[in-house]
Amino acid sequence: MTAYADHKPLTFHDAAGRFTDGGDNPRAYLERCLQTIAQREPVVKALTAMNEAGARAAADASAARWKAGKPLSSIDGMPIAIKDLLETRDMPTEMGCAVMKGNFPKRDNAAVWALRQAGAVILAKTVTAELGGAHPGPTTNPFDPRRTPGGSSSGSAAAVAANMVPAAIGTQVGGSIIRPAAYCGNVALKPTQGGINRGERLATSQSTHGPHAGCLEDMWHVAIEMAKRCGGDRGALGLMGPDALPAAIRPNRLIVLQTEGWPDVDASTRAGFAQVLGQLEAAGVTLIRRADHPFVEALEQAVANGRAVCNGITSWENRWYQRGMLDAAPDGLSVRAKATLAKAEAMTPDDYRTNLLARQQAQLAHAAVASLADAAITLACPGPAPVWSGDVPGQPLAPRPTGDFVFNAPSSMLFAPAVTVPLMSVGGMPVGVQLMGQQHEDARVTGLARWLSENLKRIATPA
Amino acid sequence: MTAYADHKPLTFHDAAGRFTDGGDNPRAYLERCLQTIAQREPVVKALTAMNEAGARAAADASAARWKAGKPLSSIDGMPIAIKDLLETRDMPTEMGCAVMKGNFPKRDNAAVWALRQAGAVILAKTVTAELGGAHPGPTTNPFDPRRTPGGSSSGSAAAVAANMVPAAIGTQVGGSIIRPAAYCGNVALKPTQGGINRGERLATSQSTHGPHAGCLEDMWHVAIEMAKRCGGDRGALGLMGPDALPAAIRPNRLIVLQTEGWPDVDASTRAGFAQVLGQLEAAGVTLIRRADHPFVEALEQAVANGRAVCNGITSWENRWYQRGMLDAAPDGLSVRAKATLAKAEAMTPDDYRTNLLARQQAQLAHAAVASLADAAITLACPGPAPVWSGDVPGQPLAPRPTGDFVFNAPSSMLFAPAVTVPLMSVGGMPVGVQLMGQQHEDARVTGLARWLSENLKRIATPA
Repeated sequence: MTAYADHKPLTFHDAAGRFTDGGDNPRAYLERCLQTIAQREPVVKALTAMNEAGARAAADASAARWKAGKPLSSIDGMPIAIKDLLETRDMPTEMGCAVMKGNFPKRDNAAVWALRQAGAVILAKTVTAELGGAHPGPTTNPFDPRRTPGGSSSGSAAAVAANMVPAAIGTQVGGSIIRPAAYCGNVALKPTQGGINRGERLATSQSTHGPHAGCLEDMWHVAIEMAKRCGGDRGALGLMGPDALPAAIRPNRLIVLQTEGWPDVDASTRAGFAQVLGQLEAAGVTLIRRADHPFVEALEQAVANGRAVCNGITSWENRWYQRGMLDAAPDGLSVRAKATLAKAEAMTPDDYRTNLLARQQAQLAHAAVASLADAAITLACPGPAPVWSGDVPGQPLAPRPTGDFVFNAPSSMLFAPAVTVPLMSVGGMPVGVQLMGQQHEDARVTGLARWLSENLKRIATPA
Repeated sequence: MTAYADHKPLTFHDAAGRFTDGGDNPRAYLERCLQTIAQREPVVKALTAMNEAGARAAADASAARWKAGKPLSSIDGMPIAIKDLLETRDMPTEMGCAVMKGNFPKRDNAAVWALRQAGAVILAKTVTAELGGAHPGPTTNPFDPRRTPGGSSSGSAAAVAANMVPAAIGTQVGGSIIRPAAYCGNVALKPTQGGINRGERLATSQSTHGPHAGCLEDMWHVAIEMAKRCGGDRGALGLMGPDALPAAIRPNRLIVLQTEGWPDVDASTRAGFAQVLGQLEAAGVTLIRRADHPFVEALEQAVANGRAVCNGITSWENRWYQRGMLDAAPDGLSVRAKATLAKAEAMTPDDYRTNLLARQQAQLAHAAVASLADAAITLACPGPAPVWSGDVPGQPLAPRPTGDFVFNAPSSMLFAPAVTVPLMSVGGMPVGVQLMGQQHEDARVTGLARWLSENLKRIATPA
């Protein structure tokens, strides 16, 4: 275990510079990752499967390309881990779910295919909460094994934070990319809805693939190299932008979004976030809060019930496939998943439509603030990762064992791009700060995140 | 075989009236369907699987409900056949594809689930062209076995036209509901995009489920009873409207849409369609053609390349899953499917985006004509079903063995509701006339179709 204060993220973009002059090579880089995995995995438990032989062969092929001066992309040779909701041709896809045990369709998700086309080394699958939902897998937070890494992209967040891999793919429906990344001190991009082709993984109307990484360069490279090859979701234009990390953009005005999460944020996290905002004001950035403009107030109100809207939409959209699973294997889903399904099965189409309407109204309210500010800033998680050590037989189930997605519901339901930057630590644990842009402003919000990352210092507050 | 001139469609809504007084019952209705299947199936070849025992049990349960005066819906007891792209818990789902032989996931598609909830009797699966594409199955046209029934919903169209079942579910991506229905003399609804929950069958960004039936009442009842229970696609409000067939709406103005198909329509079909339009004019309906208004001209131009736009979008969206199939079974796809996949794999994300842009522009052009007319009218197919009797080894493959979707590409790419009404026969074969409304006007376009159906006489022209 590394203390977060001493943590130095694993990066790839800078290593790649030495692949051409022979100072390093992708195979050696991979071997270092494998060593780290051997050291950290027994406690972190981030991975569900590895393909070491395939990864070594891919790394050797990449090394030859770099040596010949012909890498396929900026991520040629990058070891990447894939959340175990996405199909991979060389590893099982078990989705953290008993029903899916042994599922091995031997085909690549469109985004995984794109990563391979870009030369990336698909090294491992990562633990997901059951079916991307609330029931956790065994993964622990790399900076404190008593704590959750967040979810549902638990293993992707933890594998990056433990320096097992420089980047990993997660997915977000409610808060499953940004929250675990924030709990683990990673950067991560939750793209605009439809940004990266989900292929067969068209689970719900508001889910996205997105990268976790140790630095913004690697995060962006992974995202854009996927989108360049497999595009966005069916019917969506998909993520577009430059090959290189977008230039830093200094914000002039930022909306400070409270969300329904703010009332429950602990004092130390509030104090830390206030210091982050203080740095921005000191740099001349104008902050616009709900009291400052009626459109911001309208947006706050439109997302004030975000968790319930997201849960209503998602559980309805999942009900038929989960019912099919349960019929096939009555003990194959967790008690948590069964409870969610039961709620979904009590819904009518009009209940669902009402949630959709709320989502559409919120999107209009978000579009209305576009001219007010460069982006919105808020916490990426409600504080440091909570302690959770498993369900206790006989005790009531913890309601949110992987943490609360209250700060993530807005960007999810708004279909908006969001980036988390590890600008805070609270009691020694990482806490992310989130920037959210308008739909299709993924590159712009990444440029803003870069400016914050390069110009603000990390704020540490006590527990 | 029945001559089309003597054809009397099988209907259900009127039979249901006698279920309460004991003059008829769902089990007896089902047995008549089974007798017809026994007579017609050897030549028509519409079905891939039947569940006679399950259907009989469901029909008996329905009979008891009707007897007790407590039917679940207007379609309680209706025998329905399901296109073999949709999963059914009690029959295999083989998708007309060698790779899928024996596929039997034992779960219901959301729409099939909804039909069962409404009391419908799920009797059989129907032949689809391979994976809903261009490569035909064995089904023949019920009015001439040398001819195609159309595709890809070949078996659903033929089963209804042969009076095997009063209704069947089809799917349309390019023209797979309306065209086969038009070739077979059925009525059919291709709903607004997203109208009926596709469940796991989220194949592409412009596909819909929709009913084929012998009459408008049954068509509407099936559609609305599904949507009332399972709603629309993920993220879509879904089909809404009255429980009963919408009242007839007399059109005041109709746009006559040529599409890119018109230049190739044969003289007899043109003459028949002119007589249909003549009846409308005689009834006082104003017809608006491309020369009459620049918005209509703009719409014609926006859909003038519709087939290529639809094919580009659809083949791109299918490429990863079809590549996975082909990798798993190199001989598992037809030469036609392989050729389509090869074209898709030569596309870039920007090629796909260009097609999406064309589709979005066409949708804007369509929205712009909303105030000009009540709906658009056009042919539902380019003429009578073509003769096709299978590929001949050594000969080039027929380019469109299930007929040309040129008159269907517009409503598909416009996400617009379309209804075909059997208002013509050419050389003794049925030819449909199509009404197309604005998005979400499914009930309205059905009401317009009802008016045409009740007020125009069928036009017969020679071959």
